[in-house]
Amino acid sequence: MAKEKKVEAITDMEVDFGQWFTDVVTKAELIDYSGVKGMYILRPYGYAIWENIQAVLDKRFKELGHENVSMPMLIPESLLQKEKDHVEGFAPECAWVTMGGSEELTERLCVRPTSETLFCDHWSHVVHSWRDLPMKYNQWCSVMRWEKTTRPFLRGREFLWQEGHTLHATAEEAVAETKQMLEVYAECCENWLAMPVIRGRKTEKEKFAGAEDTYTVECMMHDRKALQSGTSHYFGDGFAKAYGIAFSDKENKLQTPHETSWGLSTRIIGGIIMTHGDNNGLVLPPRIAPIQVVVVPVAAHKPGVMEKANEVYELLKKAGVRVKLDDSDNSLGWKCAQWEMKGVPLRLELGPRDIENGQCVCVRRDNFEKVPTALKELETAVPALLDAVQQGLFDKAKKNMDENTHVAQTLEEAKAIQEEKGGFIKTMWCGSLECEQRMKDEAGMSSRCRPYRQEHLSDRCAVCGGEAKEMVIWGVAY
Amino acid sequence: MAKEKKVEAITDMEVDFGQWFTDVVTKAELIDYSGVKGMYILRPYGYAIWENIQAVLDKRFKELGHENVSMPMLIPESLLQKEKDHVEGFAPECAWVTMGGSEELTERLCVRPTSETLFCDHWSHVVHSWRDLPMKYNQWCSVMRWEKTTRPFLRGREFLWQEGHTLHATAEEAVAETKQMLEVYAECCENWLAMPVIRGRKTEKEKFAGAEDTYTVECMMHDRKALQSGTSHYFGDGFAKAYGIAFSDKENKLQTPHETSWGLSTRIIGGIIMTHGDNNGLVLPPRIAPIQVVVVPVAAHKPGVMEKANEVYELLKKAGVRVKLDDSDNSLGWKCAQWEMKGVPLRLELGPRDIENGQCVCVRRDNFEKVPTALKELETAVPALLDAVQQGLFDKAKKNMDENTHVAQTLEEAKAIQEEKGGFIKTMWCGSLECEQRMKDEAGMSSRCRPYRQEHLSDRCAVCGGEAKEMVIWGVAY
Repeated sequence: MAKEKKVEAITDMEVDFGQWFTDVVTKAELIDYSGVKGMYILRPYGYAIWENIQAVLDKRFKELGHENVSMPMLIPESLLQKEKDHVEGFAPECAWVTMGGSEELTERLCVRPTSETLFCDHWSHVVHSWRDLPMKYNQWCSVMRWEKTTRPFLRGREFLWQEGHTLHATAEEAVAETKQMLEVYAECCENWLAMPVIRGRKTEKEKFAGAEDTYTVECMMHDRKALQSGTSHYFGDGFAKAYGIAFSDKENKLQTPHETSWGLSTRIIGGIIMTHGDNNGLVLPPRIAPIQVVVVPVAAHKPGVMEKANEVYELLKKAGVRVKLDDSDNSLGWKCAQWEMKGVPLRLELGPRDIENGQCVCVRRDNFEKVPTALKELETAVPALLDAVQQGLFDKAKKNMDENTHVAQTLEEAKAIQEEKGGFIKTMWCGSLECEQRMKDEAGMSSRCRPYRQEHLSDRCAVCGGEAKEMVIWGVAY
Repeated sequence: MAKEKKVEAITDMEVDFGQWFTDVVTKAELIDYSGVKGMYILRPYGYAIWENIQAVLDKRFKELGHENVSMPMLIPESLLQKEKDHVEGFAPECAWVTMGGSEELTERLCVRPTSETLFCDHWSHVVHSWRDLPMKYNQWCSVMRWEKTTRPFLRGREFLWQEGHTLHATAEEAVAETKQMLEVYAECCENWLAMPVIRGRKTEKEKFAGAEDTYTVECMMHDRKALQSGTSHYFGDGFAKAYGIAFSDKENKLQTPHETSWGLSTRIIGGIIMTHGDNNGLVLPPRIAPIQVVVVPVAAHKPGVMEKANEVYELLKKAGVRVKLDDSDNSLGWKCAQWEMKGVPLRLELGPRDIENGQCVCVRRDNFEKVPTALKELETAVPALLDAVQQGLFDKAKKNMDENTHVAQTLEEAKAIQEEKGGFIKTMWCGSLECEQRMKDEAGMSSRCRPYRQEHLSDRCAVCGGEAKEMVIWGVAY
């Protein structure tokens, strides 16, 4: 007989958070490394998480009137260069195709780092009249950014994402779209991924290359660092002008339309891991878990056990639960450790004595609570337990964020808190790039956002003491 | 008021089939051209067709135990080169990334033309024991092949597809998988796309680079040319050996696994167009049409018409029909022409007199038959009509294929039939590459396949007169 597999232990997150993360993504079989640095293989279990997130977002995008399209993956250099700020932001990290077959290309083509330029070029062909607006498009694809330091999910040279691109007759409509799509991301994070977010706007320094305004949802990880989890950009008419998009309005006057784009990537899976995971591995929110419940028979060789386990499996499947029956010949200990590593929200253990008592034991992945459950109530009890795990994960993450968000009145105070405790630090800010840069240089924090929910902490900028314009949240970010 | 749009006429297919095709793909708003030759923009209507095909196949793949994954889009040159036949087949049409940011890469990377090499490399990391098999993976992505002549859908430098890759303990299992997946494609074509197929195996000359055996489904277009619509490959253990994949069997002996791959691309949309389209534009099979029914109000300004049209729209939507209400201010004539161009299977016209009579008129896109239908029977009548259109399209395509499939006993006869009538030509064949090459050189036809359904036409090869081994179907192919 072949040797039994063992689940190898992972590094404790308190010992080395980076190594813990790497251990989880590989041991939970989310990722494999490819032969190219920074390009990762999304294995079936990792991809299934992405498919579940896709399903949530795609449905919502369509409900809001967006249509999916497919753009080419290559952008001619001359097309990329039409919008000055945009090309400055992206050209340094483009990968370039210079050969087709055995021939050198006359113009090099970049593998899309993002597709604003392609959408604009297309719209310049097809948009003529106010009747053609709005254009509300989305694309599911991968993009490429030639990063120097790379990490699975968090910073890849290639990553999967969706990029929405819309074009509107008026600035008001485009701004409303930008905000609406940020809200879609916020709801996806909070309601599906159990990740509480802070909604806000980026500063001038931190906004997307070429945007007038960038809106963001920021999450806090276990190590108290920030993860930018979804962004939505308002471009004004800058791109439209650069790419020659114009439309005749109802009075037959030529007008320039206003544009938005918004994106969420597989980076969010890194966020799920670092928000919910623990020293036993991955912990997945039930609503997007590929497997919500694993049925583990105890003493499976005893008469009646496998039959009952199968019955429970079929029952839950019919009730719409994503369930798996572990009928492998691995030991009970190995099975438990494996499904914990993979973050399955609920483990349902079922042995001869349980069956006698007409019950099973449901073990919650979020807090290891063992819940004896009557077999005849499974159809309602399991969905309720899944909801409880979902809520439990959200509450725990919210507590982490709340407890690790601090107020500082001066740069020195902000620096001291960051060094001692980490987390998000709220201060007032005068709005100057200079003060923002000082916070970066002296306290090591970037501005995460100017949150929607403003608080009046004082009248003075924490950095320069000048008149405060608004509150900013600072943090160390991934 | 802005000028009313006109649907421009398209070239008749009898006048110029190629131009007709190009007119349909652009006027039906399936495609726009990008700035890179051979790379096309799939517009919302074109992409929605692909999404519907994806849904059919993805469901079926998963039912059969396949899992989706995501592989990198770039392949290091050294990795591509490990399987000799494979690299010979694909290297001449690879696009190469040679620069990352401002730096020249030490090894150039090809944009995947297909991903066998990546799957093999991954499997060499993760496959160890018989317990790890079979591996049944699929990927939805785009691939790149630097073609010289390009056409929308039919031959692009980039195209969307799915590529299935599986790894099995035994040759028998791998061959069974190869055949099973061909059957999935055949059923998708026949039952969903209304495209009758010929199932068969490719000759040595026509098989996939690196494969031991290639299975194919071949369809006939309106112009009697063949379109290879889906292929499934058996690789034996050649790739596994080249990439160092091995597993311990139950007796703990090291074995080499056997591999398959299979793919279907957006090329099939070109096939749908050329199988069902007519001189009024696109004709879509109801089962994959993004819009199955368009409700067109007649004299929409008359009291009660729009209300009733809306009611019908809501009723059909609730019944699960993909329905659109055309409430634009375009003229009736323009609306009809537009929805015919877009190939919507059923147009439901509804005017004041219809409403008085408690009916509407359903116009079938496949044969323009006008079917008066009682409003109170719509919920059952419309799905039945859609089924009738689906069947009607299949029958018409089947008739075209049957009537244009001929038998020839000699090369001269085959050549004469091809020149005079076109279509598929069945002959006996000795199995030699030489005779196959002569058929290509002298009659301009490639072997489409050695069909599953063999017929005994004679004892002699039609080309050399030698002993016949099997029947081959020849044709001019896209």
